[in-house]
Amino acid sequence: MQLHTPPAQIGIPLEMVDTPALLIDLDAFERNLKKMAEAVRQMGVRLRPHAKTHKCPVIALKQMAAGAVGVCCQKVGEAEAMVYGGVCDVHITNEIVGKSKIERLIALAKQATIAVCADDPIHLSAYAAAAQANNINLAVFVEVNVGTPRCGLDPGEPVLKLAKQIQKTPGLCFAGLQAYHGRAQHKRTPEQRKEAIRYTVDCVRRTKAVLEANGIKCRTVTGAGTGTYRLEGTSKVFDELQAGSYIFMDVDYAKNLKEDGQPLNEFEHSLFVYSTIMSRPTRDRAVLDAGHKAVSIDSGMPLIYGMEDVQYTRASDEHGTLKLNDPQRDLKIGDKLKLIPGHCDPTVNLFDWYVGIRNNRVECLWPITARGAFR
Amino acid sequence: MQLHTPPAQIGIPLEMVDTPALLIDLDAFERNLKKMAEAVRQMGVRLRPHAKTHKCPVIALKQMAAGAVGVCCQKVGEAEAMVYGGVCDVHITNEIVGKSKIERLIALAKQATIAVCADDPIHLSAYAAAAQANNINLAVFVEVNVGTPRCGLDPGEPVLKLAKQIQKTPGLCFAGLQAYHGRAQHKRTPEQRKEAIRYTVDCVRRTKAVLEANGIKCRTVTGAGTGTYRLEGTSKVFDELQAGSYIFMDVDYAKNLKEDGQPLNEFEHSLFVYSTIMSRPTRDRAVLDAGHKAVSIDSGMPLIYGMEDVQYTRASDEHGTLKLNDPQRDLKIGDKLKLIPGHCDPTVNLFDWYVGIRNNRVECLWPITARGAFR
Repeated sequence: MQLHTPPAQIGIPLEMVDTPALLIDLDAFERNLKKMAEAVRQMGVRLRPHAKTHKCPVIALKQMAAGAVGVCCQKVGEAEAMVYGGVCDVHITNEIVGKSKIERLIALAKQATIAVCADDPIHLSAYAAAAQANNINLAVFVEVNVGTPRCGLDPGEPVLKLAKQIQKTPGLCFAGLQAYHGRAQHKRTPEQRKEAIRYTVDCVRRTKAVLEANGIKCRTVTGAGTGTYRLEGTSKVFDELQAGSYIFMDVDYAKNLKEDGQPLNEFEHSLFVYSTIMSRPTRDRAVLDAGHKAVSIDSGMPLIYGMEDVQYTRASDEHGTLKLNDPQRDLKIGDKLKLIPGHCDPTVNLFDWYVGIRNNRVECLWPITARGAFR
Repeated sequence: MQLHTPPAQIGIPLEMVDTPALLIDLDAFERNLKKMAEAVRQMGVRLRPHAKTHKCPVIALKQMAAGAVGVCCQKVGEAEAMVYGGVCDVHITNEIVGKSKIERLIALAKQATIAVCADDPIHLSAYAAAAQANNINLAVFVEVNVGTPRCGLDPGEPVLKLAKQIQKTPGLCFAGLQAYHGRAQHKRTPEQRKEAIRYTVDCVRRTKAVLEANGIKCRTVTGAGTGTYRLEGTSKVFDELQAGSYIFMDVDYAKNLKEDGQPLNEFEHSLFVYSTIMSRPTRDRAVLDAGHKAVSIDSGMPLIYGMEDVQYTRASDEHGTLKLNDPQRDLKIGDKLKLIPGHCDPTVNLFDWYVGIRNNRVECLWPITARGAFR
């Protein structure tokens, strides 16, 4: 609503950035961008990263310049921010309900390539009415429950039934399967993730077979996240990967392990909440100006970058309480620290601007235009 | 950043409000406003409600019209939103650190009555430099640790030392004690809350005695929240109460009990997140369009208003998963429900607009101008 001014000017040194601020380490960010683009190319699949992570068309366009075919969004409002920011191809990985939202969805589909999901005939009739009234053909994916009990039909026959209905509904066309197993992303061992995605792939394979046996071509199977994208990507049944967090990483994703029990560390932390010490009441306690209105704690507390002896133990609305375990650690009022967010997506949603940093200098300010775009 | 449009137009029926939307039940809100105003008047203390709860000058001015002497804020950005929205008296219940923030603080102090906190000589020298340069006298409260280990000096001598330093610093004047015991607010039994605030009051009394024995008048003692305000209010040592959540209430505050073990229910739930069922995949599961980007889960899951048999069991970024315990419960795609937030303050911070409802009709749209104002 209010136009918050950015916390920095381009060209100033990092230390002068006002806090709390959302920093991007541009070198690490670009390495993540490139690494995922190469991995996806090698696997012979397409990348359609989820823009709910960054909510910023500037970043979406960089992902597309590196080879992504478009982006995913969760909400019509996010898709609007992407299209009006220059992104020409958006897949909404969600069911859209309500007359005004569907009107906006169809208006967007007249300006860009748009797809949406369904898991019930109710969705189809609402989409079709608006599509027909506007004389367009809307691409509809059927969402399948592939292991995470949220939206989505059971694999096989229920999907066939809805796909058939899409095919025979004027104004709609069947685009394929939305098959995302969210809970698999944060399983810690490779065995657990493999087992989870084996189930996902089996669901998709069975469903594709049923569809094809009934003469319905499944153009695109789309899904996967940063935790499991190589498993879906090499499964031979997925066409598009939706991983989004890889560009930033967070504390939660960094807990995923590889075969030898060590952290996977495939991508780097490139997103930080910059914060100032505002009080230093005791030897073992310091207080930061970033509480849970500046760093989301839904997946746990943030870490302090480069200071393993300092723990962020408690988040109030606007205070972060730190425990200093090393009595030699010298933290003074006014010192600025970098927090690695527990969960990147909801943290980004608390900010209006990214501050891009290279060589300790502000290189760019990118507006987070889909911040709060949850309608 | 982006100017999100409101989710409703004035005059339309509630059922037509787009979701997720932040609703205020205006009748309940006004009863809460009146009840607190009367309670405070009877206790003979002043009310200075915390605006971090609502972040909206329209609401602040209603609180002042009902007798509040001004508001509290946590950040300079919040105070700016209040002053530019017509609030003439703001107490920042926090230490402010950093040159640009202190410049803004002093600029604001030239336009309204402003006070700020300190718990270290470092704060004083920074405040004084800016105050002197601008030829103003800044009111400074000393923050005291009265039971919640966050910011604040220990009671007694350490406070005396800093108060003396404020008195002798040109550009500053000693305003009194900031004495808020945050953790006491959510202790569930009246005995626990009484014990906690007995400690708080004792800290304040000892500190006032030390100050007065040294010839320093403590003009104002300020603190308290919605959970304990009657205890501070009748203690004879508090002058101002900072309770803020009373206007809205939330699931967490509603767990506070009275003597007979029943919920206290002193104030009513007046704040709701309006949400739509977007998927109904199984008999016992429904999915809402409000996840943790629309309703904060830092203090637990929201409740579904008027439906005790329906549980909000899991929040994704943009999905809320419901468990339906009564097989007779008929929830359809498109149905709209009211969620009672687990924690009102961070939930408000996710929205740009309040939708005021009376008699099931949209009566007003109030902009949340301090949303995201954490600098």
